[in-house]
Amino acid sequence: MAIRRIFVANRGEIALRIIRAARELGIATVQGVSAADREMLPARLADAVAEIGPAQAGKSYLNKGAVLHAAIESGCDAVHPGYGFLSENADFAQMVEEAGLTFIGPRPETIRRMGDKATARSIAAEAGVPTVPGSEGRVEGLDAARAAAATIGFPVMIKAAAGGGGRGIRVARDPDELATLIPQATAEAKAAFGDGGLYLERFVARARHVEVQVLGDGRDAIHLFERECSLQRRRQKVWEEAPAACLSPEASEALCASAVRLAKTVGYRGAGTLEYLYDAETGAFFFIEMNTRIQVEHPVTEMITGIDLVREMIRIAGGEPLRLSQADVRPRGHAIEVRINAEDPASAFRPAPGTITALSLPGGPGVRVDTMLYPGYAVPPFYDSLLAKLVIHDESREAALARLGRALGELAVEGLPTTAALHRALVADPAVRAGDVHTRWLEAWLESHPLTP
Amino acid sequence: MAIRRIFVANRGEIALRIIRAARELGIATVQGVSAADREMLPARLADAVAEIGPAQAGKSYLNKGAVLHAAIESGCDAVHPGYGFLSENADFAQMVEEAGLTFIGPRPETIRRMGDKATARSIAAEAGVPTVPGSEGRVEGLDAARAAAATIGFPVMIKAAAGGGGRGIRVARDPDELATLIPQATAEAKAAFGDGGLYLERFVARARHVEVQVLGDGRDAIHLFERECSLQRRRQKVWEEAPAACLSPEASEALCASAVRLAKTVGYRGAGTLEYLYDAETGAFFFIEMNTRIQVEHPVTEMITGIDLVREMIRIAGGEPLRLSQADVRPRGHAIEVRINAEDPASAFRPAPGTITALSLPGGPGVRVDTMLYPGYAVPPFYDSLLAKLVIHDESREAALARLGRALGELAVEGLPTTAALHRALVADPAVRAGDVHTRWLEAWLESHPLTP
Repeated sequence: MAIRRIFVANRGEIALRIIRAARELGIATVQGVSAADREMLPARLADAVAEIGPAQAGKSYLNKGAVLHAAIESGCDAVHPGYGFLSENADFAQMVEEAGLTFIGPRPETIRRMGDKATARSIAAEAGVPTVPGSEGRVEGLDAARAAAATIGFPVMIKAAAGGGGRGIRVARDPDELATLIPQATAEAKAAFGDGGLYLERFVARARHVEVQVLGDGRDAIHLFERECSLQRRRQKVWEEAPAACLSPEASEALCASAVRLAKTVGYRGAGTLEYLYDAETGAFFFIEMNTRIQVEHPVTEMITGIDLVREMIRIAGGEPLRLSQADVRPRGHAIEVRINAEDPASAFRPAPGTITALSLPGGPGVRVDTMLYPGYAVPPFYDSLLAKLVIHDESREAALARLGRALGELAVEGLPTTAALHRALVADPAVRAGDVHTRWLEAWLESHPLTP
Repeated sequence: MAIRRIFVANRGEIALRIIRAARELGIATVQGVSAADREMLPARLADAVAEIGPAQAGKSYLNKGAVLHAAIESGCDAVHPGYGFLSENADFAQMVEEAGLTFIGPRPETIRRMGDKATARSIAAEAGVPTVPGSEGRVEGLDAARAAAATIGFPVMIKAAAGGGGRGIRVARDPDELATLIPQATAEAKAAFGDGGLYLERFVARARHVEVQVLGDGRDAIHLFERECSLQRRRQKVWEEAPAACLSPEASEALCASAVRLAKTVGYRGAGTLEYLYDAETGAFFFIEMNTRIQVEHPVTEMITGIDLVREMIRIAGGEPLRLSQADVRPRGHAIEVRINAEDPASAFRPAPGTITALSLPGGPGVRVDTMLYPGYAVPPFYDSLLAKLVIHDESREAALARLGRALGELAVEGLPTTAALHRALVADPAVRAGDVHTRWLEAWLESHPLTP
């Protein structure tokens, strides 16, 4: 049952992350690459490389058949999907398992159930986990939406039942806006996800995004405390922390306990994250959705707990029971991750692929860099813009902010614009330093704080 | 009293380490450079640069007057000496303090007393800390040495009273060897340290080097657990770990308690290390000497405790009391540091300065790199050969060894030979993996394990 050879069905920094964890466990890796990714660092560091298709993700990293075929042909006995791409595709997970390989993640039925947001809400209710006041399941048509909104109370959010990552979300402030937006949202959801199903939720104006990392082996589950990711742009996280500075110890305990209850209710296997909306004014928290995969921001949890999440995922997928009890997970200090993207913050965050002409990465105590960059690397224009994660750990949030400022001062990526300039401005901002932000704070701040190149 | 501007009276990776700690505390830095070091990374990252003399260390980094003059002229109110050079020079510390600047280290009289190994032994005895059976203070002449050796029992080590870092040490197996070596050792000590004084100690064949990190504020003192540095070549450490795998919890507790007693006896101020010889066969430990400065291997202690030692040194020097109680210091996991030196292990470790043509540093979880290297940097031939410290942290020694192997696989320094090849061989060696080594193990191993380029 023990895994011997993992097919890495992803690219960029998370592919490198998987290769590193596998190598430390003595497990070989085969890196799946599109035609555009032959020169990326994970392809150089893996034990072998297998081409899965042309540059377009739909024909390579999202091509279930091609990925599975390459995994089998290269002699792998397991597939790690990373995040994005096929990581939350239940059909792919099922194909992998039916081919006799191990999918490093939850069981296909868990992915399927938690992937449908309406079903996930019902499961949360069953586990006694509060959810945002919203429609009971999908709303079919405008009349049903009006009736649901009247019960929930305006403003309401319109979300795609099959959506994720913040895509396809709209806010209606009154019945008229609802009438306009429901048809638009249906059409967009159908186009984006092949499923026009919608549901409604109460909209909280100054919401904070908190989330709980869990780890389960199908029988037992534990939490690894929470993260806060309230600094978002277009609902994409740009800066993440652990623990959440906005939570009291009692609030953290209640939140994390609720996440474990939910994970146990579904017999969760692997690493997962329960996302919550936290209303700091009332202290209420509401479950939003579960990500049934490793997340971009998992390193902040690794920094405060000392636990390697990707390693644990692989062990659990290989059939080992959880090695850790809840009492073994003890947080220390504070961690912050900032995402260095190939985007130009001085030009509306326009994606900016290009070739790295020079590179200086920060080092020293409490600094971790996860990146596939190297001097001379040509960042392809086909995929998401994440270049590097700069992760800081220190004894307190205040110390971590100082260390982040120091590390950003040492970071130099030449050849293309990056979001480092955004983070240099944020780390000096009084509201960020005070932790006084919410999920819509950054977009408002950007309007009044133009970033110069 | 708070420090505002630090003169960095050192070079290489430790200069960078000091600049990073100062910056995180909001303190400015001025980097002292010799004529050969204008292009080194610390000079680029410091707030200002001041030239202190020509390339030869004796005329620059070891030139007390020139260093102090540059510190005063550049408006500094404190001097950090790093390790080596003037760091344990009591006269320099006194000059700095008499000029009204803060010496970031112990009081001059503490340096002076602990710097004389015979006096340090007497202080240890006063604190109830066992020392290696040896001469009571200096042995003056061959007759006194013979009498002392008869009491101690052969083999004996001959050490320079003013020495340090393993220099000037000889082993005499019988009275005849003693008669030959005493005059040689006297002459060499005089040449190297300006002081021909010697003392004798019992020689333990399979000794392990363990040491305890302490931190004091002149009134109180705590320990930060121990390190083991038994892998040495020509008495220079090449690989260091924390905690010491050879110690039981009870042995560690007794050792660390003895170090705190000694630190309190001298009213120690700042960061210091008490070095011990540990006889794993009998469980006995003997105090050897105290290093009254930060050590090269301090990062392994930082990794297991989460405490920034250089930051604490600066705070204490600025007049703050110890912020930590003994109960605040809780070790987690295991850390290993390997020294990447500009030496050719395939050619008797010949020093190999040169220009860095390409550089890939490892990253990801549990990996810290402290280095002043950058692509294009010309390593000057005038100073010690340390290029980088690769520091690994993981949940256990076994996991840390696997991670070290992974990280060494990612490390690529091109343009000159380094000791990375030595560490790649060591990390795979069964004796190293079992922790079954002693301070003379590596030299014997090297004779039977030729390293190819």
